[in-house]
Amino acid sequence: MANIAFIGLGNMGGPMAINLVKAGHEVCVFDLSETAVAQVVEQGASTKASAIDCVKDAQFIISMLPAGKHVDGVYLSPETGLINYIAKGSVVIDSSTIDATTSRKVAGELALQGINFVDAPVSGGVGGAIAGTLSFMVGGSDDEFKQVEPILNAMGKNIFHAGGHGAGQIAKVCNNMLLSVLMVGTSEALQLGLANGLDAKVLSNIMSKSSGSNWTLDVYNPCPDVMENVPSSNDYQGGFMVDLMAKDLGLAMDTAVGSQSSTPMGALARSLYAMHAASGNGGKDFSSIFNLFNK
Amino acid sequence: MANIAFIGLGNMGGPMAINLVKAGHEVCVFDLSETAVAQVVEQGASTKASAIDCVKDAQFIISMLPAGKHVDGVYLSPETGLINYIAKGSVVIDSSTIDATTSRKVAGELALQGINFVDAPVSGGVGGAIAGTLSFMVGGSDDEFKQVEPILNAMGKNIFHAGGHGAGQIAKVCNNMLLSVLMVGTSEALQLGLANGLDAKVLSNIMSKSSGSNWTLDVYNPCPDVMENVPSSNDYQGGFMVDLMAKDLGLAMDTAVGSQSSTPMGALARSLYAMHAASGNGGKDFSSIFNLFNK
Repeated sequence: MANIAFIGLGNMGGPMAINLVKAGHEVCVFDLSETAVAQVVEQGASTKASAIDCVKDAQFIISMLPAGKHVDGVYLSPETGLINYIAKGSVVIDSSTIDATTSRKVAGELALQGINFVDAPVSGGVGGAIAGTLSFMVGGSDDEFKQVEPILNAMGKNIFHAGGHGAGQIAKVCNNMLLSVLMVGTSEALQLGLANGLDAKVLSNIMSKSSGSNWTLDVYNPCPDVMENVPSSNDYQGGFMVDLMAKDLGLAMDTAVGSQSSTPMGALARSLYAMHAASGNGGKDFSSIFNLFNK
Repeated sequence: MANIAFIGLGNMGGPMAINLVKAGHEVCVFDLSETAVAQVVEQGASTKASAIDCVKDAQFIISMLPAGKHVDGVYLSPETGLINYIAKGSVVIDSSTIDATTSRKVAGELALQGINFVDAPVSGGVGGAIAGTLSFMVGGSDDEFKQVEPILNAMGKNIFHAGGHGAGQIAKVCNNMLLSVLMVGTSEALQLGLANGLDAKVLSNIMSKSSGSNWTLDVYNPCPDVMENVPSSNDYQGGFMVDLMAKDLGLAMDTAVGSQSSTPMGALARSLYAMHAASGNGGKDFSSIFNLFNK
């Protein structure tokens, strides 16, 4: 069992930290929200007056923050940056979904101080965080991957080694860009069938067993009442918010620009999700893009 | 066992007719190509001087033709149309991939003569036609579906009842439009990963086990040497031709226009496949769209 500092106790970070406690680790948590801290402390975590105090004795430091600028600030700020307080030989696990450039910058700065780093963004949503069934896409050396794998196992089901520093972020951005294309394409195909007299369940079944098979059609169907226990059958509540998909597609476009890659479908998906968010749907599940094609 | 007339012995029709012979049916075949006829007759089919002669005694008439105008002409031409020669109570199975409007027109005219009809386009390609593992998407009444199911079982693995007349064509057009979106989206995501230093096999494995999972990624990977026995690992030979995908996407756009449906991804996929075909890739497998995003 390890000494772990956990920074950032939002909708994802909170339940992830609790699963580490349940697995028997010594977990010191910190967040700017006292309520968020209290909820995890109630489950057996400890806390201290600052993130700096939490990380001093930690073998592993896990962060779950909103964007690249927060990760950069928390670790690298000239005086208050955690880089000045983390012990040599410790391992930083950043599970935030951010740009790979920031991940690589933080990894490089920490390495100069003898501190290990992996980027380890997750997929699986709040449900997966609570159930401990997240997927982690890890960027780091083979040694670093071996060190973090047992820790991540307490919070997830699939732990993938994507490559070197930043590769976890790239894998996530590629996956989520593809996911958005699957969702829009599936929505269009189902709506085209509906508009031409087909039954959504019948068409879903046919395409699921044919070459149209994909995750959004097969297990996350965007058409209401085709499946139970998916957001589309619950007024698009819960699940993965449109605003978060729009954020991930922004990262995908930044990544594509950085490598001068052509991504016509990804770019179209970003525009459609931005349009959908701007119409007041930012808080709905991302499968609500189905309604953009209503007749 | 049934008396079957089979009209149209191309790359798909030929092996489909042979599978009917192997199943023990009496099959009379016709095609304008004598070579195509000879190949099926060699496997035990009979032939006659004209399609009219073939259909006179047939309980089932199966057609596999290139486009709607051919189907319309073969069945409905004023004097030579087969409608004038098919016995009342027989069942026409049109497995051509054509527009649903023509399917419904032919179904209606045949019905006036007491002849049953189903549209039953297939997916599964030449390999599926040879192996007898095609999927059939059937449009017709419940009675008509029951009549044709045992016949289709000799040529296919999955026999779907999509709905009334024309529904088979609509289901196929929806599936193939979605398939094209999956293929382009998967190609973009893999290329974005490659351009940012990821290994194609590693990224494919991660996305296949995550929410990016889809048929083109999981069993028909467009990146060379990720999988064995797929067209991408064989210089994009074999499989499903770009020209045929472009044709199906044209049908999808016609269908969308007819129902005033919005299909932004489908429209983009059509443009990309048209562009790819125009660059001299029409005869390659449709996964070769991957090369459009090479760096």
